[in-house]
Amino acid sequence: MAIPATHRRIVLANRPNGMVSPDNFRLETAPTPEPGPGEVLVRQIVMSLDPYMRGRMNAVATYAPNVQIDEVMTGGGVGEVVQSMHPGFAVGDIVEGTLGWQEYSVPAMARLRKVDPTIAPLSTANGVLGMPGMTAYFGLLHVGEPKPGETVVVSAASGAVGAVVGQIAKLMGCRAVGVAGSAAKCAYVVDELGFDGCVNYKTDDLDAAFQAHCPGGIDVYFENVGGKVYDAVTRNLAVGARIAVCGGIAEYNLAEPELVPRNTRYFIPMRARMQGFLVFDYFHLWPMALPRMARWIEEGRLKYREDWTEGLENAPAAFTKLFRGENFGKLLVRVGPDPS
Amino acid sequence: MAIPATHRRIVLANRPNGMVSPDNFRLETAPTPEPGPGEVLVRQIVMSLDPYMRGRMNAVATYAPNVQIDEVMTGGGVGEVVQSMHPGFAVGDIVEGTLGWQEYSVPAMARLRKVDPTIAPLSTANGVLGMPGMTAYFGLLHVGEPKPGETVVVSAASGAVGAVVGQIAKLMGCRAVGVAGSAAKCAYVVDELGFDGCVNYKTDDLDAAFQAHCPGGIDVYFENVGGKVYDAVTRNLAVGARIAVCGGIAEYNLAEPELVPRNTRYFIPMRARMQGFLVFDYFHLWPMALPRMARWIEEGRLKYREDWTEGLENAPAAFTKLFRGENFGKLLVRVGPDPS
Repeated sequence: MAIPATHRRIVLANRPNGMVSPDNFRLETAPTPEPGPGEVLVRQIVMSLDPYMRGRMNAVATYAPNVQIDEVMTGGGVGEVVQSMHPGFAVGDIVEGTLGWQEYSVPAMARLRKVDPTIAPLSTANGVLGMPGMTAYFGLLHVGEPKPGETVVVSAASGAVGAVVGQIAKLMGCRAVGVAGSAAKCAYVVDELGFDGCVNYKTDDLDAAFQAHCPGGIDVYFENVGGKVYDAVTRNLAVGARIAVCGGIAEYNLAEPELVPRNTRYFIPMRARMQGFLVFDYFHLWPMALPRMARWIEEGRLKYREDWTEGLENAPAAFTKLFRGENFGKLLVRVGPDPS
Repeated sequence: MAIPATHRRIVLANRPNGMVSPDNFRLETAPTPEPGPGEVLVRQIVMSLDPYMRGRMNAVATYAPNVQIDEVMTGGGVGEVVQSMHPGFAVGDIVEGTLGWQEYSVPAMARLRKVDPTIAPLSTANGVLGMPGMTAYFGLLHVGEPKPGETVVVSAASGAVGAVVGQIAKLMGCRAVGVAGSAAKCAYVVDELGFDGCVNYKTDDLDAAFQAHCPGGIDVYFENVGGKVYDAVTRNLAVGARIAVCGGIAEYNLAEPELVPRNTRYFIPMRARMQGFLVFDYFHLWPMALPRMARWIEEGRLKYREDWTEGLENAPAAFTKLFRGENFGKLLVRVGPDPS
């Protein structure tokens, strides 16, 4: 496939104040970048849309640089090496890395990894066998530290991370209770993924639901959403509880934070532990976890669901679905054809 | 000393709504209790007043039973065994345990421990060599896990727990920064106890003060107070920070909780950990820690300050000082004379 002189990309047009909108982005055409020594040019095939990207749109950087106005929107994706000036990568290699919201990129090499497309569909390198899956794996096992017989609660349970958390919890001999935003999502995590129960945060009384599903209290909570779900979880912890804080999607689009009582009062009697984490702190351990996860997929013990959007130009509208809970499974954008 | 037929005791007269008051207590005279088989009668000498007691006055029990109306107020104290029906205790033994707000008691044996009055003044069994000192020791070392060179912040820094936390932090090779409520208390923790700095929470801008005293962020926070100090600490954590949650005295007397933004957003980028703890979970390890603490006292490397009140009848008024920050050092009540 010939390399075109120009390509399409999506830049940050302006910063959202509160809820993100497609108007915060702009599609444009730009010269195709050229790799320098030690770099590669990647044609993107499947782009990932993830909640963390919302934080990168803010005026203030946190653990990672924020995106500047008129700069290409950041994000992970899977693509094909089409030009290589790096001895470790050949034309035709399938790779996953920070490809950005664009058709062609010269990505940062430190986080570029080769993907074996014979193990699973290459889209999984954006999901269950990529950043979201590794987030679930290390957040649950290394931060949450579940023990057999314990009750693990995970929010955004049908999402890219939550679905993996609950299934790994089951594989570890735990009870898994999800929190999701519709009857269909709850039915999916129980009937398809094998969770023991699911709380519908839109319709259920949260305290009553947690008391019903977790009669001995919540031993491990994998936190993806924040907000009122988090508040209710902290009121229903078991002695020795652990909270692994991954994200808080319910709070990302608030122009002003909600005000609630402080919750340390619940941590003392329960001797509870809460810990934030970032998946890239475990990057050196991914090569240990990925084959284990791939084997679970092959054995049918780890399932995943993808929610596809066609075309780079539709990424902004698809992205906003995440924050309304309108996606159902890992949100992906088809940017280009699979390798021939 | 003959055992009198009656003794004085202080019972919970009614539950506080908001700030505790001496009117919540009632002094009364009652028959001196009699020990049964396996029990002892203890004459109280020095009674301890501690923040946790406020929680026992509420209508809802937490990790420990609450005090019922007309029941003797709970609390720790040091006394002398005056009658023994237990083979391990002899008349004349000095003991520390849950003696209650009263002159004579038949305490729960599970938490009664002998005190060697030749090591240090027997009042220290209520303080630096008792529950508050052990709270500091295990909360800092086992929960906070400070490393040499790290910056440890402790609130209520001139109090019974905080003063020990900061001094142990220094002994471990850390920088110690206190938070206290007056210039005199700040001068004490820096000049007398050897802290590296102290923030006056009543007069200083908390964020600016933490940034000045902890330019690399706060590595360990020992939480005694909650409230606005806690909020500011969570905004100024270092990567890998640990928060050991011991108490939250600023919040104990609020009729309605204050409302603040949720703070998990600070835990993720800093990979911060917060953990509640109870000192009695470490009760089996006290015999390891107490001699170490006693040696530090003997060597002049661990100092303590006591704030005395004379007479059981003055305990209620003294107790309320704790919650206005009017005590300066470990709050103690002289209930009876030292053994002759």
